[in-house]
Amino acid sequence: MSETLLSSRNLAFELYEVLDAEALTQRERFADHNRETFDAALGTARGIAEELFAPHNRKNDENEPQYVDGGAVLIPEVKPAVDAFNEAGFQNASRSFEQGGMQLPHLLSRACFAHFQSANIATSSYPMLSMGASHLIETFGSDEQKRLFLQPMIEARFFGTMALTEPHAGSSLADIRTRAEPAADGSYRIKGNKIFISGGDHPLSDNIVHMVLAKLPDAPPGVKGISLFIVPKFLVNEDGSLGARNDVTLAGLFHKMGWRGTTSTALNFGDKGECVGYLVGKPHHGLAYMFQMMNEARIGVGMGAIMLGYAGYLYSLEYARERPQGRPVDAKDPTAAPVSIVQHTDVKRMLLTQKAYVEGAFDLGLYASRLVDDCETLATEEERKQAHELLDLLTPIVKSWPSEFCLKANELAIQILGGHGYTREYPVEQYYRDNRLNPIHEGTHGIQSLDLLGRKLAQNNGAGLKQLTRLINQTCERAQAHASLDKLREPLEQLMARLSATTLSLLGDLMQGRVAQGLANSALYLKVFGHAVIGWRWLEQAIRAEEGLARGDAADTDFYRGKLQAARYFLTWEVPSCHHDLTLLEARDDTCSTMQDAWF
Amino acid sequence: MSETLLSSRNLAFELYEVLDAEALTQRERFADHNRETFDAALGTARGIAEELFAPHNRKNDENEPQYVDGGAVLIPEVKPAVDAFNEAGFQNASRSFEQGGMQLPHLLSRACFAHFQSANIATSSYPMLSMGASHLIETFGSDEQKRLFLQPMIEARFFGTMALTEPHAGSSLADIRTRAEPAADGSYRIKGNKIFISGGDHPLSDNIVHMVLAKLPDAPPGVKGISLFIVPKFLVNEDGSLGARNDVTLAGLFHKMGWRGTTSTALNFGDKGECVGYLVGKPHHGLAYMFQMMNEARIGVGMGAIMLGYAGYLYSLEYARERPQGRPVDAKDPTAAPVSIVQHTDVKRMLLTQKAYVEGAFDLGLYASRLVDDCETLATEEERKQAHELLDLLTPIVKSWPSEFCLKANELAIQILGGHGYTREYPVEQYYRDNRLNPIHEGTHGIQSLDLLGRKLAQNNGAGLKQLTRLINQTCERAQAHASLDKLREPLEQLMARLSATTLSLLGDLMQGRVAQGLANSALYLKVFGHAVIGWRWLEQAIRAEEGLARGDAADTDFYRGKLQAARYFLTWEVPSCHHDLTLLEARDDTCSTMQDAWF
Repeated sequence: MSETLLSSRNLAFELYEVLDAEALTQRERFADHNRETFDAALGTARGIAEELFAPHNRKNDENEPQYVDGGAVLIPEVKPAVDAFNEAGFQNASRSFEQGGMQLPHLLSRACFAHFQSANIATSSYPMLSMGASHLIETFGSDEQKRLFLQPMIEARFFGTMALTEPHAGSSLADIRTRAEPAADGSYRIKGNKIFISGGDHPLSDNIVHMVLAKLPDAPPGVKGISLFIVPKFLVNEDGSLGARNDVTLAGLFHKMGWRGTTSTALNFGDKGECVGYLVGKPHHGLAYMFQMMNEARIGVGMGAIMLGYAGYLYSLEYARERPQGRPVDAKDPTAAPVSIVQHTDVKRMLLTQKAYVEGAFDLGLYASRLVDDCETLATEEERKQAHELLDLLTPIVKSWPSEFCLKANELAIQILGGHGYTREYPVEQYYRDNRLNPIHEGTHGIQSLDLLGRKLAQNNGAGLKQLTRLINQTCERAQAHASLDKLREPLEQLMARLSATTLSLLGDLMQGRVAQGLANSALYLKVFGHAVIGWRWLEQAIRAEEGLARGDAADTDFYRGKLQAARYFLTWEVPSCHHDLTLLEARDDTCSTMQDAWF
Repeated sequence: MSETLLSSRNLAFELYEVLDAEALTQRERFADHNRETFDAALGTARGIAEELFAPHNRKNDENEPQYVDGGAVLIPEVKPAVDAFNEAGFQNASRSFEQGGMQLPHLLSRACFAHFQSANIATSSYPMLSMGASHLIETFGSDEQKRLFLQPMIEARFFGTMALTEPHAGSSLADIRTRAEPAADGSYRIKGNKIFISGGDHPLSDNIVHMVLAKLPDAPPGVKGISLFIVPKFLVNEDGSLGARNDVTLAGLFHKMGWRGTTSTALNFGDKGECVGYLVGKPHHGLAYMFQMMNEARIGVGMGAIMLGYAGYLYSLEYARERPQGRPVDAKDPTAAPVSIVQHTDVKRMLLTQKAYVEGAFDLGLYASRLVDDCETLATEEERKQAHELLDLLTPIVKSWPSEFCLKANELAIQILGGHGYTREYPVEQYYRDNRLNPIHEGTHGIQSLDLLGRKLAQNNGAGLKQLTRLINQTCERAQAHASLDKLREPLEQLMARLSATTLSLLGDLMQGRVAQGLANSALYLKVFGHAVIGWRWLEQAIRAEEGLARGDAADTDFYRGKLQAARYFLTWEVPSCHHDLTLLEARDDTCSTMQDAWF
């Protein structure tokens, strides 16, 4: 049977050849694990994803949630799939054994989850949101909140959401208007309207725990005046039983281009003035707390984009192998049998581009997930801090690069299928529509570019950036052991040399108050930085492929040759394209910034 | 009222400042026309498009054609819109007065039609297909065929289609299996299955005339064995009245990602062995004939892609002007009122990119339409031949460049609207879905790149290419009169110098039998050539803008400044990006061609 979710050979390459997942079992937290337990978890994930998630992916798209009697109704296939996911323990894959979890490394839980995202991004969103919300309470909530809300979320009786956006405030959260008034009993009364709340209503759980950003009466202006509240759909009694329905109403559903199986809701809080909320942590610290969830979610969004790209790549590859059409461009005999389109160079180009984007991004997504493990389980505080700095720096790339380039991969998958790819009789058009959300939610591309250039680079005196530069240099040094990789390494070295200089110079602008000038072309910077990072990951993969070839296992030769060709594609076709972007950045080109509204 | 279909100021700029439409009225065929008659036709088109086409664009999308009792049923709004289009004479806008037409230049009829494409690409497709089919009969049909089929098409009682693709033969038409057996009465019996036939069934006309490619029993193999047949849905009696239903059955409808209002059909010809067809022109010449229709259709597809891009650009511009969100990146006061997002540099970038793509392509589409007029109405045969050579060369660019870059424009329009852009409550997501068809139908991107590099460049000893190069050089020379344009002209000159050398060298490969090597990276070549052509058109627009500024009409200053900024964007941000592609082309990079199926 062909693999439609992701290539297990490539997954094994990532986990055991590139990212050395087995080394994690040397750490105390993962001491009970080994490659067999990892593979068992992956196998279970694959099985449930194939059997319960993939089969209703199209049905989700064709039957989006309906608003019925004040609630959202989903197709019946979603609940058994999510239930099986929870029963198999994936909701708590990385939680400790004591908490009832699998105590897997994040690297492995992300790899498990990738199967669900590939099979059915919409259905997988419900547990993903819940994982983020429960982790937020786990980190910042009181013991009482953990007892009443976290524990049922761990048991998957309650699900969670993140409720940030308002009709007039999306990217600019400083402007939210939702208010929280203190009540006599120590709780708060929430009043406001939120939109685009994914999973804001559904029949999958007994209760839904909304993590809501709102402002207290004494809130200072701007982002420093935002607080975080737990607002359950149903109130929860002291003994944990469900109480009355809270004053949260489903005002309506949004109808999206794709990702249709996930409810996107408008929620009204406190229409009757009776919406009960509970402050999480300290007043006015809500945005900082929420950033934990958003950073997790950003990695999740990046992985989702990757897996949509991956699914489209695998489907179009299979199609290209099976579809006969035309003859080689230099064929002389018009009566010769047609060849499979995978034989045409331009189709190879479209497949190789997809492979380079998807497998490059997949490597980065898993690399970042392993960094989450490093943040938690490296031996010393200093090491954990370093891992955190690097992860912080990479997060905007993990989120944005796949959102842009794995969407391009989906565009190419459609193109390979031609007219068929444009019909809803084939899956690739849905992947493309689904993936178009990813450059928007959890911080748009523009926001990510400002986060990278305006915030992350200079954080802790550029500690993350220095680490990344050192790591890339180390990879380049190791690549020198393979003369065959010279032509792949050199473009990366050339890009890095120039990028480093440009970065310093742009940071100079920011530090010296030329903020608008420094940030003007942040979108270009995001692209170049992302290409450098993915180029680095491809060179790393190429080194592992050379090592694999040197081991000489004939069964793996084709696999490693493919890795080398994709690395070559990315490093020689894609990476050098960034020099023109750097020229514009270096020149502080002001074509966009000097454009006037009236001139359009 | 804001203009949602296209900017009339920009249309006037194109027609009267760049392309000198008024000069056409010096030609005998257009002697009865003047700027007033042109503008009257444009105004009528705009009115019908706004009043009857635009209002049901979303409804078309939400209610795709249904298969009922063997036929396709459309929403009721389509027919009155198409009827109004026909009654106003747009079906025959370029036909002669004697034929009942408006005898407008093609430049003007395309500009008129652009309004309908922008307003509702799906509904506009029915008349577009009919125009192509009727022109095919007009050019190659017998007098009898013209009487029985063309005349009712001119009167819009019959509509037409082009029926080429078969389940196993899309890009490779040489492999079609539809057969045509001679019958005793001089007609033929057609047998075969066609798919993706747009407008293959609908209730808009009394009859549908399918232009069908099929093979005669004695057909030589390959593309030289294809013949063209008229196959009506209803037979037509000698007196022009409708006869029996022909043996053409609607086997089913395709369900597309976008462009949903246009039926995409599977048609069975001769299930009962009784499908009557009539040979058009000579046996085995069908593909050459069909290329006339395809070349027209390719310009039509390019214009459709442009207008979808245009509609998205205008909508996102209006949104950006009205949507307050956030503050400038260097703002200090978090309590300051939010600014319209059009004030953010990254939003300006996304708008300016759209403007550069859409207005650059729009200029090229109209330029090509004017060349159609030159082919027909220039004074000497030599001049007409030259116009034809240039048009032939540009056709793959007119088709493919907008299909790629105006789709990118639509992607940016969604991004500007953020979460709203991703919902079906706003129009931009539909433009994006609709536009995704354009790189596929009427010859995929890959086919266009082979057509350009493998066929068009060398045609007539490169006559078209020499002309184009001369024209671009002339524009560069004229640009030298404006020192302000130096920085825009130089990148084009640099690109052209290198592109010319690369072109010669690639043609050398082809002429010396290294066909696979020469064509391996044809997709890169198509992009570079397209960017050179659009860069040329932008430099031409920039010259006109400078001339406009020099005239000093204050009301137009903003408009011309916007033109110059968009030209600057395209020539300094986009054009230089092609040098890396040229490096790969020059090196005959074989990364894609040496990739092996087994390595994926």
